[in-house]
Amino acid sequence: MSALLKSRIRNKALLSKLRSPEELIPYFKNGQYLGWSGFTGVGGPKVVPKALAKHVEANNLQGKLGFNLFVGASADVDIESKWAELGMLLRRSPHQVGKPIEKSINAGKTHFFDKHLSMWPQDLTYGYYTRFKENDLLDISIIEATAITEDGGVILGPSVGGTPELVSTSEKVIIELNTALPSFEGLHDINMPVAPPYREPYPVTTVKDRFGTSALPIDPSKILAIVESDAKDTVPENTPSDAMSRAIADHLVEFFQHEVKLGRMPENLHPLQSGIGNIANAVVEGLADASFTNLNVWTEVLQDSFLDFFESGKLEFATATSIRLTPGGFKRFFSNWDTFSKQLLLRSQAISNHPELIRRLGVIAMNTPVEVDIYGHANSTNVSGSRMLHGIGGSGDFLRNAKLSIMHTPSARATKTDPFGLSTVIPFATHVDHTEHDLDILVTEQGLADLRGLSPRERSREIVKKCAHPVYQPILNEYLDRAEFAMAKKKALHEPHILRDAFKLHLNLEEKGTMRIDSWE
Amino acid sequence: MSALLKSRIRNKALLSKLRSPEELIPYFKNGQYLGWSGFTGVGGPKVVPKALAKHVEANNLQGKLGFNLFVGASADVDIESKWAELGMLLRRSPHQVGKPIEKSINAGKTHFFDKHLSMWPQDLTYGYYTRFKENDLLDISIIEATAITEDGGVILGPSVGGTPELVSTSEKVIIELNTALPSFEGLHDINMPVAPPYREPYPVTTVKDRFGTSALPIDPSKILAIVESDAKDTVPENTPSDAMSRAIADHLVEFFQHEVKLGRMPENLHPLQSGIGNIANAVVEGLADASFTNLNVWTEVLQDSFLDFFESGKLEFATATSIRLTPGGFKRFFSNWDTFSKQLLLRSQAISNHPELIRRLGVIAMNTPVEVDIYGHANSTNVSGSRMLHGIGGSGDFLRNAKLSIMHTPSARATKTDPFGLSTVIPFATHVDHTEHDLDILVTEQGLADLRGLSPRERSREIVKKCAHPVYQPILNEYLDRAEFAMAKKKALHEPHILRDAFKLHLNLEEKGTMRIDSWE
Repeated sequence: MSALLKSRIRNKALLSKLRSPEELIPYFKNGQYLGWSGFTGVGGPKVVPKALAKHVEANNLQGKLGFNLFVGASADVDIESKWAELGMLLRRSPHQVGKPIEKSINAGKTHFFDKHLSMWPQDLTYGYYTRFKENDLLDISIIEATAITEDGGVILGPSVGGTPELVSTSEKVIIELNTALPSFEGLHDINMPVAPPYREPYPVTTVKDRFGTSALPIDPSKILAIVESDAKDTVPENTPSDAMSRAIADHLVEFFQHEVKLGRMPENLHPLQSGIGNIANAVVEGLADASFTNLNVWTEVLQDSFLDFFESGKLEFATATSIRLTPGGFKRFFSNWDTFSKQLLLRSQAISNHPELIRRLGVIAMNTPVEVDIYGHANSTNVSGSRMLHGIGGSGDFLRNAKLSIMHTPSARATKTDPFGLSTVIPFATHVDHTEHDLDILVTEQGLADLRGLSPRERSREIVKKCAHPVYQPILNEYLDRAEFAMAKKKALHEPHILRDAFKLHLNLEEKGTMRIDSWE
Repeated sequence: MSALLKSRIRNKALLSKLRSPEELIPYFKNGQYLGWSGFTGVGGPKVVPKALAKHVEANNLQGKLGFNLFVGASADVDIESKWAELGMLLRRSPHQVGKPIEKSINAGKTHFFDKHLSMWPQDLTYGYYTRFKENDLLDISIIEATAITEDGGVILGPSVGGTPELVSTSEKVIIELNTALPSFEGLHDINMPVAPPYREPYPVTTVKDRFGTSALPIDPSKILAIVESDAKDTVPENTPSDAMSRAIADHLVEFFQHEVKLGRMPENLHPLQSGIGNIANAVVEGLADASFTNLNVWTEVLQDSFLDFFESGKLEFATATSIRLTPGGFKRFFSNWDTFSKQLLLRSQAISNHPELIRRLGVIAMNTPVEVDIYGHANSTNVSGSRMLHGIGGSGDFLRNAKLSIMHTPSARATKTDPFGLSTVIPFATHVDHTEHDLDILVTEQGLADLRGLSPRERSREIVKKCAHPVYQPILNEYLDRAEFAMAKKKALHEPHILRDAFKLHLNLEEKGTMRIDSWE
């Protein structure tokens, strides 16, 4: 037992629970329901899942030791990939990242379901996801900790996610105490789930407000074992901004300035939610360069660009359920711990993504879809309607409840044979995750469409004109002309569609490698 | 001035504002933005809109005096129908009922947009719907009152709806004081809108909790006039339950009993939300006949069947934003005022439909869609994707945030040539208002599908088996077989679809008057 480990486990009675990962393998049985801590690839267990994978490989148990795995969002990509390759994922929810698991889901080997990230933990506590079991508990949850307090409370690491709910609905809990990380004590605001009819309002009126504890309480009798870990999360380097994403950010900054000028937002805007990826990075850079000050962030995940945002002096406070930093980002974060830790707060995903708080605070939500249709319905999850990417994540929580619901995307993407083979603006979304009722603003590098207060037919022309790639503008306008003509005859002109042609761009893509159709005839 | 009117206007300074409807006509100009009180056809203005319609008819102003009309939900059917027939509706939001307005929207004459009923009033206060105007206010709101207090507060009638927000964003207000109704004083809990960043939690933890005022405050300088009204709301007789709707109710009651038995709900369930129509009536009857006691209701609209529900002794308390009673129902309500008024509370739609409260209370939401697809996406608004019915209403507010999200529908409907020509379970929804992420339970007269925790492919088989009409089960299963076969090859087996065939049932309906296709080939 390392001195460091001993110093981190301040409740000495728990020292008796120390085990090696290998000793725990017999507790895991085929078909069990497991929970893992973690969110967006950070803060999850590592050494026990790795030991289990090694056990499966060494004993040729592929397909014979599989689990129903529940993690707040995506797990560590390398570890989850390994489990998927070894056939260890029978069922998975609600979000995942990595080629092997994507492949396993789309091969029909892993039953996957996605759910709004705010609702998923509470549905878990209701017993909805364990209703097929004799008892309605998860068998084992494995959670990463950075310390254990005198009274046995668990100090989590770089994410909170669904851990409070996973722990409270698990029969047994294994704690991986990670000594490769500093203790994150003070960074979390932990709230345990309360079921109706006993719920009280959440007393949060600014992004900084706390109303929970710094440690996660766990009934000691539930703790099966504590394992020392020195494994690090593997977060890939962030995608830098480019001309396309900077153009999107420019449109957005200009729009925000316009809204402030008209008095529809205060000068420091409203709390910002932003996703992962190069557009999100460009938006953060754009905001840091603009004239806004004292900005605040209410979001689910922070990436490296937020470190720059803090250092620009423009960002006052940020709260999320995960800080998904690269190894370099974490190094920077830890060496400026005293500064950053005062400006940052990690909450559970049930709180960070809660409609109550997103609506109360008037959050500005920004997310990237797979495709958006001419009337404003968005697909965030299934390519061509059938193939799952990652899951809906928190996009629905934020878009449905934000004061300003914004989607940003490049207007077109390249296919193998056509540099603009794929239009992100299409006649009819092949899968709808967000409806026309949930979108205020659509922005591409081409421009920004303000959809507020418009009827569907007004919206469609605005979207095509402002957001569609020039190559697709005539194609989409012709669809609209034809649909309006046909539906005028049928007296169905509210949201005109020709169902026979609605997926024609997608079928053309499938057959000819591009959405550029020759003709609508 | 009638003595009754004088007794109702307790602030005597306001008596000087009394005018006849005809005197107000010059204030109305083509292209203005108007607000009306009312929700689901009750509590709206009547005499001024009727006078305006008469004015248009008498002076041949059809198409020359049109308005952008904003009402919390649907207005009085007869009045709105008249306005639609006279071309007086340039723009309308967010909900409507009646053939002439439906016709006007689907002929492209009225620009209509629907929005979640909880969000619509706040978007109005943000200026989103008036952003095309020089100032961002509605020009005139006309609201129905049943009394005015000593300090000028307005006692509303049988609905609150969006009236607080309409009044607070209007330049001028006309009050129709309805002396044909008794004063509804004491029945309302009125909260005025607060914009972020100044919002506080709503202090509501049970359906009974009040935190507002009984009267709606209005700046007296905004009051353009007070008009006496003796017009009554025209609510059609309710559709009685029948064998189909009673079968649905039976499935639901059995399911609730099962959930209580397993400890997933308390014995008095959770607060119920239910819509309008014969299925809603049957559910209320079923619950009144079952063994549950001390039930509570948190919903947007109450219909006549709730009077029986109260009298059954099973219903403890109900809160909504509207009591949409028939003339007979109102008579019964008024003659038992002392009893009913103690068990009932009317709130604004921003509160009755607020995600914060629906989620906190753990509401059980029940709504009827137009169609539901095999994976659980629901269409609530647009027939065959293009033709608007009424608007999304509050279904999204409730389904997204409920503890149990339930949709109920007959499994099939008759067309002109086929008694089962239309299946409500279809391969792909022609319009998506509610996604697969928002549905827990689907129930038809055939059975109940419990979708919680299932992957899309599991869901699809469960829906077809339990809910689809027997005539359509083989057709839908064949679609699934074919889609799974095709998508296995494409490695896209998460939510298998064949886009080319997805709307085939709808196209068949269009061409042959039935969804019963001969073959998928």
